[in-house]
Amino acid sequence: MTKPLRIALAGLGTVGGGVIRLLDENGALIARRAGRPIEIVAVSARDRSKDRGVDISRFAWVDDTTALAGLDVDVVVELVGGSDGPALTLARTTLAAGKGFVTANKAMIAHHGLELSRAAEASGAALKFEAAVAGGVPVIKGLREGAAANAIDRVYGILNGTCNFILSKMEAEGRDFADVLAEAQALGYAEADPTFDIDGVDAAHKLAILASIAFGTQPAFGDVAASGIRHVLATDIAEAEALGYRIRLLGLADHGAGGLFQRVHPHLVAVSHPLAHVTGATNAVVAEGNYVGRLLFQGAGAGDGPTASAVVADLIDIARGEFGPAFAMPADALAAEAPADPGERRGRAYVRFAVADKVGVLAEIAAAMRDAGVSIESLIQRGSSGDDGVGGSVFVVIVTHEGPERAVAQALERLRGSQSLTGQPLWMHILG
Amino acid sequence: MTKPLRIALAGLGTVGGGVIRLLDENGALIARRAGRPIEIVAVSARDRSKDRGVDISRFAWVDDTTALAGLDVDVVVELVGGSDGPALTLARTTLAAGKGFVTANKAMIAHHGLELSRAAEASGAALKFEAAVAGGVPVIKGLREGAAANAIDRVYGILNGTCNFILSKMEAEGRDFADVLAEAQALGYAEADPTFDIDGVDAAHKLAILASIAFGTQPAFGDVAASGIRHVLATDIAEAEALGYRIRLLGLADHGAGGLFQRVHPHLVAVSHPLAHVTGATNAVVAEGNYVGRLLFQGAGAGDGPTASAVVADLIDIARGEFGPAFAMPADALAAEAPADPGERRGRAYVRFAVADKVGVLAEIAAAMRDAGVSIESLIQRGSSGDDGVGGSVFVVIVTHEGPERAVAQALERLRGSQSLTGQPLWMHILG
Repeated sequence: MTKPLRIALAGLGTVGGGVIRLLDENGALIARRAGRPIEIVAVSARDRSKDRGVDISRFAWVDDTTALAGLDVDVVVELVGGSDGPALTLARTTLAAGKGFVTANKAMIAHHGLELSRAAEASGAALKFEAAVAGGVPVIKGLREGAAANAIDRVYGILNGTCNFILSKMEAEGRDFADVLAEAQALGYAEADPTFDIDGVDAAHKLAILASIAFGTQPAFGDVAASGIRHVLATDIAEAEALGYRIRLLGLADHGAGGLFQRVHPHLVAVSHPLAHVTGATNAVVAEGNYVGRLLFQGAGAGDGPTASAVVADLIDIARGEFGPAFAMPADALAAEAPADPGERRGRAYVRFAVADKVGVLAEIAAAMRDAGVSIESLIQRGSSGDDGVGGSVFVVIVTHEGPERAVAQALERLRGSQSLTGQPLWMHILG
Repeated sequence: MTKPLRIALAGLGTVGGGVIRLLDENGALIARRAGRPIEIVAVSARDRSKDRGVDISRFAWVDDTTALAGLDVDVVVELVGGSDGPALTLARTTLAAGKGFVTANKAMIAHHGLELSRAAEASGAALKFEAAVAGGVPVIKGLREGAAANAIDRVYGILNGTCNFILSKMEAEGRDFADVLAEAQALGYAEADPTFDIDGVDAAHKLAILASIAFGTQPAFGDVAASGIRHVLATDIAEAEALGYRIRLLGLADHGAGGLFQRVHPHLVAVSHPLAHVTGATNAVVAEGNYVGRLLFQGAGAGDGPTASAVVADLIDIARGEFGPAFAMPADALAAEAPADPGERRGRAYVRFAVADKVGVLAEIAAAMRDAGVSIESLIQRGSSGDDGVGGSVFVVIVTHEGPERAVAQALERLRGSQSLTGQPLWMHILG
């Protein structure tokens, strides 16, 4: 057996503790698989004395996290978080020192992945971040390696476990968003400030990373159009179900002549599609390749065990010497791609209006659709039950035929400020 | 750009043609990802003049397939098939020459994988066979690398597309096995001699490979207990549906104190399980790890495009220099594990009897179950429609509580030769 892979670990939260427990419990098996032991030698975190349920007295303690890169180690594992600050400093100093860097930090990779990938290539160091996307699911490996023979037409999936937990609970119990969010927060499934999850920012970080690897383009987080699930009502879930769909927050990216398209948005997914059956905090990613067809990767998207599994998988790759450019090709080979114009896209849409119960409202909506050139496939009007947060309103749900998204946007623009609407319309795309 | 990876290709059937087309179409993208071009330089097949829809005149032609290993190439791709014969000779000579060997040949890897893995390690050559299991789905990579940090408790899945095509067509259309098989053969979805697919041998080859990688045990194809879907009736599918299940041919392996357990058998899968929603020729594999939880990999299990995708993914790994021991650890580290005793297993069972419509039959079956200690959860008796191949019979379906499989076997043994039974009972396990 060759010499151990020596690890410094920054961050001792739930995932850091999970990494320590995993290496303790599965260490002998991992040494057989990796060809050498993987040993944590030093750790750093904010509070040395906190009880983490694991013995850290056997590791060297370092007060200044960014000093870990200077130790006699092969790899630094960063579980501190934050797109900048100490995490980024640590990444830069570690890679500059020619040491491997493994992270679960999606925000940092989405923002600074290109720079860090260049730094890794310059020093010959490994840069790996499997845990940054879809927790324990090896989807970065699946795209970087498993599907590497394919031109990827499209990549999309359920990238945020908190949102999927809330949507599938709304679905199962007929409850509204705010109600389920409050319960999820009480149970610890959602953060006290859930903005990054609920509004699609977390999924957007992950999508930007996936799109780069899938398409050979530079990570472009700033070009992801993101909205979340805040405005999805129980009535939307019920109407979607009646139409043969479930609502899922999808990150979706494709890449064609028009540029790189990246969107995080609640979508209607046909019940015949595998993603319609993904419930709870599970993540699932679909990649469509020109030879392999549709690949699906699914599993736990968060939690200390799954995330630690992905972090240690990266360490095993490094211990085996099986690693290369982080984004599947050298940073300089990644194309700087302009964002695609969403108005040019075609698709089917679901639009739900909450309207006043008075004469002429339907005619006004129908006229706006007609004037914008939107072709209506079905229209349903249903009275509100009164306890759905838009009490006293009537719901009008329109499903369009396939057509340009620009037309739907124009129709909604025409209706803006209309006295007939009692709230903002909700426009969701139907996954095609 | 460094020098190309030079390939010799043995076998120019549909998959071989797919590999050539894929490298033609995606070659530039693959060179960016692999860091170097991948170039076929020589080919060999039975018939040089056959029209394959691709131009092979640009490659050197070699009459004797086994001579490919002697050429100036980096990797030999074997798509000839057969567990022994020329494929095995080619594998041995290629690896002995220190050249990479990539194959889609599940039978050869299931039978001779250990020997070939040793040969690869001895010469430092790559041995890769992603296409041997689940076609285009990167499940070997998923287990070998993606889930490598985990002790895998269990691996199971839908490993044969032909059987899943037949079962899901029976399910959708209420038809019986023989009828759907005949149609599948006419359409080319099933072989003229479908034995390997239908009776579970193909799935058993794949399961033996997956189990070895998952558990760190030597491939043990001879220890796989395999039966197929020949005896599944439309009535079984209907009864399962009424109970909340779908029937799927599963390969399932686990590994504990009792040894290595490997089984290919039709199972009842709860409709809440993702595998219940896998229809058509799709393959899907679940791995349950002690940290990652349940991982699912799903996609096209066969076909020239998906299989070529997996073959070329292996070539990209080799071009990148990202490869190591084929079964996830050195051959000598793989444990020689005794097979587990199936009688020791516990589970729930579905047993369907076709019985004569006369007094006392139910009592006889119930007594046999009681005497063997089988605890019955539900029992359904239903008249036959007469057009299901067991005309005039009555069906009795029993679902057991969880208990030892030995007891069910004993109950069926007690009923053997009973005049009350008009056909062989069908015993299926319920996936727990």
